Amino acid sequence: MKLTCLWMLAISSALLAWAAVGLAQEAGGDARIPSTNAPGHQYPQIEADLRATFRISAPNARQVLLDLSGRHAMAKDDNGVWTITTEPLVPGFHYYSFIVDGVALADPDSESYFGMSRMVSGIEVPSPGDDFYDAKNVPHGEVRIRSYVTESTHEQRKVLVYTPPDYDQNTTARYPVLYLQHGYGEDRRAWWRQGRVNFILDNLLAAGKAKPMIVVMEDGGIATGLGGGRGSLPATAPAANRLAFAQAFDGIMITKLIPMIDATYRTVADRNHRAMAGTSLGGWQTLQITLNHLDTFAYIGGFSPGLPQDIDRITSDPVGFNQKVKVLFLGTGTVERDSNPNIRNLHETLTKAGVKHVYYESPGTAHEWLTWRRDLYQFVPLLFQD
Amino acid sequence: MKLTCLWMLAISSALLAWAAVGLAQEAGGDARIPSTNAPGHQYPQIEADLRATFRISAPNARQVLLDLSGRHAMAKDDNGVWTITTEPLVPGFHYYSFIVDGVALADPDSESYFGMSRMVSGIEVPSPGDDFYDAKNVPHGEVRIRSYVTESTHEQRKVLVYTPPDYDQNTTARYPVLYLQHGYGEDRRAWWRQGRVNFILDNLLAAGKAKPMIVVMEDGGIATGLGGGRGSLPATAPAANRLAFAQAFDGIMITKLIPMIDATYRTVADRNHRAMAGTSLGGWQTLQITLNHLDTFAYIGGFSPGLPQDIDRITSDPVGFNQKVKVLFLGTGTVERDSNPNIRNLHETLTKAGVKHVYYESPGTAHEWLTWRRDLYQFVPLLFQD
Repeated sequence: MKLTCLWMLAISSALLAWAAVGLAQEAGGDARIPSTNAPGHQYPQIEADLRATFRISAPNARQVLLDLSGRHAMAKDDNGVWTITTEPLVPGFHYYSFIVDGVALADPDSESYFGMSRMVSGIEVPSPGDDFYDAKNVPHGEVRIRSYVTESTHEQRKVLVYTPPDYDQNTTARYPVLYLQHGYGEDRRAWWRQGRVNFILDNLLAAGKAKPMIVVMEDGGIATGLGGGRGSLPATAPAANRLAFAQAFDGIMITKLIPMIDATYRTVADRNHRAMAGTSLGGWQTLQITLNHLDTFAYIGGFSPGLPQDIDRITSDPVGFNQKVKVLFLGTGTVERDSNPNIRNLHETLTKAGVKHVYYESPGTAHEWLTWRRDLYQFVPLLFQD
Repeated sequence: MKLTCLWMLAISSALLAWAAVGLAQEAGGDARIPSTNAPGHQYPQIEADLRATFRISAPNARQVLLDLSGRHAMAKDDNGVWTITTEPLVPGFHYYSFIVDGVALADPDSESYFGMSRMVSGIEVPSPGDDFYDAKNVPHGEVRIRSYVTESTHEQRKVLVYTPPDYDQNTTARYPVLYLQHGYGEDRRAWWRQGRVNFILDNLLAAGKAKPMIVVMEDGGIATGLGGGRGSLPATAPAANRLAFAQAFDGIMITKLIPMIDATYRTVADRNHRAMAGTSLGGWQTLQITLNHLDTFAYIGGFSPGLPQDIDRITSDPVGFNQKVKVLFLGTGTVERDSNPNIRNLHETLTKAGVKHVYYESPGTAHEWLTWRRDLYQFVPLLFQD
């Protein structure tokens, strides 16, 4: 009710603003302002049929394109404002840019995210039927930004920690921990800002579908050197170097991050109460690190993961693996699967080898955040159930 | 030592990257990568003498300017990369943009901030002699992002809460609270991201110069309507409307925010343990709200505040005011003061009227974040001392 009023106010305000700058167009009566818009900004807007309208004032530019799942020409009006109304967009969270006379730049009217290895705009396209990541009227946990100094090397690092709604009330309760990694070209903020991890957990907990847990999001070093300082890995570094840096995260996790988390938060500090999951290259890191340290983790999640070459570490001893690992989860999007069936193939290989695992396909989605939000929503209820 | 190594690695990497793209220039041996660069990005860079070099690849652009305290032409090389090395920059945190063929856009290689009522780049220029806002090897508090639902209206809102380093260890301790507001065109994130509130508090606490306290940063609604939804106030709204929205924050603070904070965190919930401060238009809000509610607040901080018209509410009863208000703090920058002496004039008026207060001038700074970081550093040690 209140929300409806806010939308009505927003839309009528938008119409006034639009009229004020002399545009001939009218917003449809059901146009919405995406949750990804910067505060107070009326564009982009999304219609009920998921067509979106973008605009930018650039009187002197010769060409402006929208880069959102391909490049699309924008049209300039007499006031120098470039606009485009797209075809209906794919639901979920998407990165986008304006290409102004050849340069890809963020929209000053939308929130910027660290993705694609640079600061880039994002747009949240409502997904009919998916409300599990919405901010709802349920008890909310916190996302905490913790600065910490590593033992011995005295490196300043940062980590994001989700604590469940009751964490500060039940001051003697202890919680299991999920370590959750971002993908290539993103950083520790991605699961919070792009992934909505906190709302997914809040909603699962409110529905009684998951055990209360702590979620830890550190920087996998994939776009940031070792993830501690800035600029310790050049953006132009060869892929092999990036992988080396990503691999170094194993040592940071095992010797620095996990001990700090266990010393700082009320965790249950054993393998049966510790999970790790990650997306894309962060999924590759997850498989590498968990298989190297099965004494540390009992739950493993690969969300569209890159696959390590020595995946036969799993299939060579299915009985031992099944005894040790409580849940191995693999997820992919059906659109992604159609162009790259690696993960489905692994699922089939594991099935044939008798390795217990859960395989999930996100309907209609590619290598993107809606796939990974759904993966998380499927994965979290499986954790810490015994 | 470790830091030096990281810088050396960063700089040698930068040189390699630079060489790789065929630039003739060389980074000075002491060039630094600002803490505001996006992860993994080598530019901008700052020399020891505070000259900064910016670059952006834009082969098809006809003109690229750097907008940083004025507009400065950038030069294009044969590869279409535009660069500029500035005069020595003023220390502190500054917003900047690239103007590409007339459009002001953020640098994809630097972090973006919500400032100037849009997403804009920021650059941290080291300030010799100011290390009070650096991340140091001291116990760190947390910055917590809390979502909450308001009573009765069921509005979804967000607030940032700094908790001191010992908050989760001393589970019976209770803490006083500072409510801290951003300025016009910014939002609740500004004191954390632009202001470094957490490191300022961490360092003061480690030095024994301040009482442990909670700091609460909500959205003053100055660029965001009522600060709850998005787009509830058009960016083009007349200034009078913006002020009306800003004024509405009084009700949100008193009836929703403060009760939620006192119910959720271990606060001391009385006026003697409650302070409010704010910058610029947020300072105007602070003066309005605290003077309306002297039963709620005992400490008041105006950091380059806009001045309410009815400031004679203070001077009309100096004895009563002095009895009620434990600290009234007013700050301004000397550069700001030279062009707008309003705050110094108020200081003189208050002095003549016998109103106890603290007046602070930040040397060499304007209406900007270094002024306000210094204000906070001066203000916080005065709080909750009796």
